[in-house]
Amino acid sequence: MNIPDNVLNRLTLYHFILDDLREDEETISSTKIAQLLNIDSSQVRKDIKYLNSSGKCKVGYNSKELKSSIEKCLGFKQTKDAFIVGAGNLGSALAKYTSFKDYGLNILAMFDNDTKKIGTTINGKEVFEFSKIANLVKRLNVEIAILTVPKEAAQAMANYLAGAGIKYIWNFTPCVLEVPKTVRVWNENLIGSFLQFTNNNEIDKVENDNRN
Amino acid sequence: MNIPDNVLNRLTLYHFILDDLREDEETISSTKIAQLLNIDSSQVRKDIKYLNSSGKCKVGYNSKELKSSIEKCLGFKQTKDAFIVGAGNLGSALAKYTSFKDYGLNILAMFDNDTKKIGTTINGKEVFEFSKIANLVKRLNVEIAILTVPKEAAQAMANYLAGAGIKYIWNFTPCVLEVPKTVRVWNENLIGSFLQFTNNNEIDKVENDNRN
Repeated sequence: MNIPDNVLNRLTLYHFILDDLREDEETISSTKIAQLLNIDSSQVRKDIKYLNSSGKCKVGYNSKELKSSIEKCLGFKQTKDAFIVGAGNLGSALAKYTSFKDYGLNILAMFDNDTKKIGTTINGKEVFEFSKIANLVKRLNVEIAILTVPKEAAQAMANYLAGAGIKYIWNFTPCVLEVPKTVRVWNENLIGSFLQFTNNNEIDKVENDNRN
Repeated sequence: MNIPDNVLNRLTLYHFILDDLREDEETISSTKIAQLLNIDSSQVRKDIKYLNSSGKCKVGYNSKELKSSIEKCLGFKQTKDAFIVGAGNLGSALAKYTSFKDYGLNILAMFDNDTKKIGTTINGKEVFEFSKIANLVKRLNVEIAILTVPKEAAQAMANYLAGAGIKYIWNFTPCVLEVPKTVRVWNENLIGSFLQFTNNNEIDKVENDNRN
């Protein structure tokens, strides 16, 4: 796939919209999608061209065809297995995030060092102690770890995961991890996201903009 | 501020790195930052130019100056108040995310309809019933709501928040919300993020790429 990140992100949002349509809404226009996302409709049409989909008609796109084109193009059906490392609130929230499965992310198990959590299940996913990771990575052939441990434990855990054979870390901690070249990190940077949000919307404008 | 989203995102990550430096690491090079993030060092230098910072010397940037330039430029000290709407695992995780405060996001209170949660506090933030939102939005002059309710409840809650005077919704639900023009939504699209992650890293390449 050679789809820019921003396009990919928006295509997922289009899929959320299509998923929420009523059964009788057989078509959807780029204007409608654009309005829901507060973006330009030409942007929507440009994004959809990446799909090589043919479902466009006079009144808009065929909803079902567009939905299945996005699914096919973005590989929702190609399941990727992952472990959640850290069974605190965030790890538990992600384990319960039922939409992940629909979009191709399959959480196989969770890990924590809290004896009260070990042996319990969260949304059907068993919590194992950290020391079991290396063995289970090999046995289940898992390459992806979703890292939700506290900030203080993040680097040490990243080292351990790299040693255990994990190849991809989806990092939810507010830390930049130092990892060997065999491991790729994807930073889920909530702080950066929040700043983009406030920046784009100029929240604070009244206070800081003297031109008014 | 007129900083592109991607730059803003990376500047936050540079701040994480600077925040983790030891006291005696007085300088940091663009090469070191680039290596930690697996990006090009010219990109790092370009991003830092947005700060109009003067802390560059032969061996790199002065760590403290660079850190404080990022803080000043991105407005970490300008606190924005917010409510968390939904005190489940995700809402609780966000309430406990201590880094938010350092980066200018101040969670004042939480809301839920679970009587077992109402009246309790999570990391010092009291949980109120949903019906109290409108009153507290006005009393505390809060404009931002962080939406972490279940998917099924998301649209109805967005309608209620709009009516209550909320102006910005940071949406963690996998739904595209239909809101009046007075409200801006920022979608924290975890599915899109995961797909970017797998797409960028070509996870699955072995299975799907016949050229090898």
